[in-house]
Amino acid sequence: MGKYKRSERTVMLSKRLLENPNKIYPLKEFAKDMGVAKSSMSEDIKLISNLFKEKKFGEIETTYGALGGVRYKPYTNQEGSKEILDNLKEVLQDSNRVLPGGYLYYSDVIYNPQIVEKLGLLFATKYKDEKIDYVLTIETKGIPIAMATAKYLDANVVVARRENRVTEGPVTTINYISGSSRRIQAMSLNKRAMQPGKNVLILDDFMKAGGTAKGLSELVKEYNCILQGIGVIIDTEKPRKKLVDEYYYLLKLKNINELKKEISMSTNKVIEDYKP
Amino acid sequence: MGKYKRSERTVMLSKRLLENPNKIYPLKEFAKDMGVAKSSMSEDIKLISNLFKEKKFGEIETTYGALGGVRYKPYTNQEGSKEILDNLKEVLQDSNRVLPGGYLYYSDVIYNPQIVEKLGLLFATKYKDEKIDYVLTIETKGIPIAMATAKYLDANVVVARRENRVTEGPVTTINYISGSSRRIQAMSLNKRAMQPGKNVLILDDFMKAGGTAKGLSELVKEYNCILQGIGVIIDTEKPRKKLVDEYYYLLKLKNINELKKEISMSTNKVIEDYKP
Repeated sequence: MGKYKRSERTVMLSKRLLENPNKIYPLKEFAKDMGVAKSSMSEDIKLISNLFKEKKFGEIETTYGALGGVRYKPYTNQEGSKEILDNLKEVLQDSNRVLPGGYLYYSDVIYNPQIVEKLGLLFATKYKDEKIDYVLTIETKGIPIAMATAKYLDANVVVARRENRVTEGPVTTINYISGSSRRIQAMSLNKRAMQPGKNVLILDDFMKAGGTAKGLSELVKEYNCILQGIGVIIDTEKPRKKLVDEYYYLLKLKNINELKKEISMSTNKVIEDYKP
Repeated sequence: MGKYKRSERTVMLSKRLLENPNKIYPLKEFAKDMGVAKSSMSEDIKLISNLFKEKKFGEIETTYGALGGVRYKPYTNQEGSKEILDNLKEVLQDSNRVLPGGYLYYSDVIYNPQIVEKLGLLFATKYKDEKIDYVLTIETKGIPIAMATAKYLDANVVVARRENRVTEGPVTTINYISGSSRRIQAMSLNKRAMQPGKNVLILDDFMKAGGTAKGLSELVKEYNCILQGIGVIIDTEKPRKKLVDEYYYLLKLKNINELKKEISMSTNKVIEDYKP
């Protein structure tokens, strides 16, 4: 036995794994850090792994061989995702959120670190079997959900801008048609922001007709990257026909009645239980 | 003893605490969740608390009385903050980061979830003794550091916008003079984004003359809130005189030589060791 008790080692191990999702740590490195034999370390990891499985905290995956090690894959289960979606719906249906013009006030929700981490966990669960290199979004309100999801997927965030700034260096600019206002808009991205051949997940806070998501997917093509999915926090029921074919949403906004101050939303079907 | 071993309980406890910094959990709630007596729970927490102190992971604080409970205050120590700052400096001084016009490319760094969490930990350490309700920033590149810091401080993020949008509802708009370009600019914030009397920390990615930070502090006043501090990731050596008096920076950009592709930066003095 080294200088730490098992109950201390399991804390240090889980801390490291929880703070670095989807990174592979060599068992040897862990054993050295803790000052114990590799066999004790394996037992510690088995304990954590069984506990995570039982509590549905996600998966602790052990791989063997030269590049082997231990890795934490965060995901939630059916019950967990239902709880997150139901809470989100309840918070957003609050009648005080109706804005003049029939818009929805939700900035406080997507900028709340605790809430957005939970939503990120849902997207990370949905896309856990894809290898994602970049989470691509457009300024402004898509950034928090992109950051939260990218952390879980061990990806980097890339943010397209609506205006081109001299301080950003050479950019690629594309024009796209905003689905709802039918206006021509532009988005720009630094030339070096994405390397060719990489896997991209597009995330945004809101989708109406899908024009922005379509623009972002064209940016993915322009950089010779591979689009792995599109996700939004809030989708709208109308228009029914969107400019992108496949996408995943958390909530669907069915109607806002400005006069009665009523918001009606539905949740997407919950994520199925993980079967390892 | 309940159904879980101590080494399992310590994992579940640390997970809960690590994922909810600065939130107070009643010991009773923990004991009930784990199915053990409050006395066993206290021993578990003592073990975690001593370990966190020894490893300088932050403080596990136990408070007694009716509103008492256990809480995790994240902070780093001198050695930890020096390592984070030195790494950041090394990454950003890379000659490939020189952009035409003598600008610095750093978007990939501030949008990297792993890196920005570490920088957030530095700001959380710096402001750990203030009660912060809101971390205020302006779109776009200040958002990730604001989110990361707010998570540690258990605060909400508030983002001012450069343009006013109809979808945002009633806003407060202020005009301010950009320190570097001397142009009049505007920033807007939803009327309900901050409640009066609350404590605000302003964070941004970059400060040149400090015009934006000054504009944001005026917004704080406009909402009858209390400014607790201003922090930026990168400060510039010139102009030496800034439009705000007190602020905390992580790195100072001394010079960029576009021809030689040389970037020269210095780190701020490291955060002193925490003395509980």
